[in-house]
Amino acid sequence: MDVLESYESVVASTRTRLARNFADYPFPNILLRDAHAEEQAGEIVSIVSAELKRMDAFRLYEMSNVSEETAALLQEKNLISRDLIANSPISAAIISEDESISVMVNEEDHLRVQYFMKGLDLNKAFERVSGIDDIISDTIPFAYDSEYGYLTACPTNLGTGLRASVMLFLPALSRRGVMKKTAPALSRGGLTVRGAAGEGSGTEGDFFQVSNEMTLGLSEEDILYRVQRAVETLTELEIRERMCMKAEGGISLFDEIGRSYGILLGCKKITAQELALRVADIKLGLALGYIEGERDGEKLIGELDDFMVRMRPANLKRLSGIKLDGEERDAYRAKEAAEAVKAMNLYLW
Amino acid sequence: MDVLESYESVVASTRTRLARNFADYPFPNILLRDAHAEEQAGEIVSIVSAELKRMDAFRLYEMSNVSEETAALLQEKNLISRDLIANSPISAAIISEDESISVMVNEEDHLRVQYFMKGLDLNKAFERVSGIDDIISDTIPFAYDSEYGYLTACPTNLGTGLRASVMLFLPALSRRGVMKKTAPALSRGGLTVRGAAGEGSGTEGDFFQVSNEMTLGLSEEDILYRVQRAVETLTELEIRERMCMKAEGGISLFDEIGRSYGILLGCKKITAQELALRVADIKLGLALGYIEGERDGEKLIGELDDFMVRMRPANLKRLSGIKLDGEERDAYRAKEAAEAVKAMNLYLW
Repeated sequence: MDVLESYESVVASTRTRLARNFADYPFPNILLRDAHAEEQAGEIVSIVSAELKRMDAFRLYEMSNVSEETAALLQEKNLISRDLIANSPISAAIISEDESISVMVNEEDHLRVQYFMKGLDLNKAFERVSGIDDIISDTIPFAYDSEYGYLTACPTNLGTGLRASVMLFLPALSRRGVMKKTAPALSRGGLTVRGAAGEGSGTEGDFFQVSNEMTLGLSEEDILYRVQRAVETLTELEIRERMCMKAEGGISLFDEIGRSYGILLGCKKITAQELALRVADIKLGLALGYIEGERDGEKLIGELDDFMVRMRPANLKRLSGIKLDGEERDAYRAKEAAEAVKAMNLYLW
Repeated sequence: MDVLESYESVVASTRTRLARNFADYPFPNILLRDAHAEEQAGEIVSIVSAELKRMDAFRLYEMSNVSEETAALLQEKNLISRDLIANSPISAAIISEDESISVMVNEEDHLRVQYFMKGLDLNKAFERVSGIDDIISDTIPFAYDSEYGYLTACPTNLGTGLRASVMLFLPALSRRGVMKKTAPALSRGGLTVRGAAGEGSGTEGDFFQVSNEMTLGLSEEDILYRVQRAVETLTELEIRERMCMKAEGGISLFDEIGRSYGILLGCKKITAQELALRVADIKLGLALGYIEGERDGEKLIGELDDFMVRMRPANLKRLSGIKLDGEERDAYRAKEAAEAVKAMNLYLW
């Protein structure tokens, strides 16, 4: 199998983020502490919002006016961060209609410009955030130092302010213990790899996010190149490890996957953790060819990822229309899972 | 629900057995030890076989000529016993074409006349063995004592020589710990209850066999009446316990059953023990109305019982056509289970 062709069964999504601050305004942490700075904070929101709205269909969320429920929903979709919610007296999010672009205002920095897309395209993802960056910098000057580059609230973002990250589905590397050895090597190359649910998270669902650790002393091109190379290497390793896994796993592996498939069809309650494990099994089954569907395996893997986003707590609450307690949530999740799997018309070899 | 109507979801089968010995021949254990008694043993086989063949379509299996494979198959179907196989130099089985009647010759006693039927009908089952008994006793006299009744090799069968037993599916009583308390009460009434796979067996598949312990000092009618009463009581208790189980079990019970259903559909290997547990779950699901099929639940429960007989080792070997090793057998079992469950078109509420 060509490694390039196999990205689809490994790479889930690409995300880029630029951190920027305006030269003529204090950093958000100062704005937040100073009761008289509310006006300045509001100015920043207004300026950025006006610029973006001229460009495209954006929606402004002033965090002080946003319900707890909506905030949770946006956070689950990775459109906003916990810090943005914490800064709600002065913070805002400006989100494109298709939810691919999200600009957080007055989070840790004045601006956090984010772009998200399915699949792998780091250049495109960088161009998108860079385009937004250009539009805004034409209006108000960014804090920039000729030696360090863009100035940020935290030194880890100093320089390019760029974080490029790719979400990878690495069941074979993860389950066969290869990730433990791979992470330190990536770290030496200025990259970091971590479980999907964020820093310090486990590896539920076999998702890993690769991103650049360093933003200083490297050009944007360098950063993108390094992340791209890491993704290529991990994909190649993963595909090779999947082959070994299939060859060595034999019927026990197939049985494990088949049981997860059956359990998703038959269970009447399931926790979020177990659901993630079972769905990862189905995805692995699709990737290994143990399970087939009417559509391409890669397409089905993507559909299962979308399904998992819909199953996050705030989404689940919105979907079900009512507030569910723990067991009701488990029951609702089980019902949705069975329906989703049934609708895929999967076939177990 | 009327208890009488619910027998079908509780009673699997009825079995009767008469132990008889001919007055003019030594007991089989003597025949076996005496090298010169082969002729006498052969005479018994010939006489019984000739009488039965006049009556109906019977097939004679002289155990000395029967392959190990066939013997295992007949034993799995409960048509012959381990003791009959052990006595192979002198023993034989005469089995009706529909396999409802099996007469073992020169087992522990000269004759063990057995009748097996699905469902509950102790009187019919007794009439059948009794009919065979009459035909044979017309030809040669049985060993009979006016005080003790029919004489047998082992005193536990002395008297009527009748054992009447009923196989019951008691998942609620078993899983809720009620059987442990019930067994001693039955014992005081001269009855015994034991796990399905025979003496000393566990309760895999939630099957229990109720039979009379005593054969002496009671008339045949008394024995049948006592077993019938015990079956009625256990059925009533089981139905009541199922109601409680459903009411208290809620979604956790349904989840357990649903997962077993899914696992049977999806697994790629399964041990005999796990299969028994999962199939018992499906049967319980049918009995509780958690699972429905195109046919009556009771009919499907019976079909699953038949399926389990086909999955016994010797049957499996005959079905698959080749000798399978442990893991291959688990794989074959999984394949058959998935097909059987699929063919039932079950619907999980």
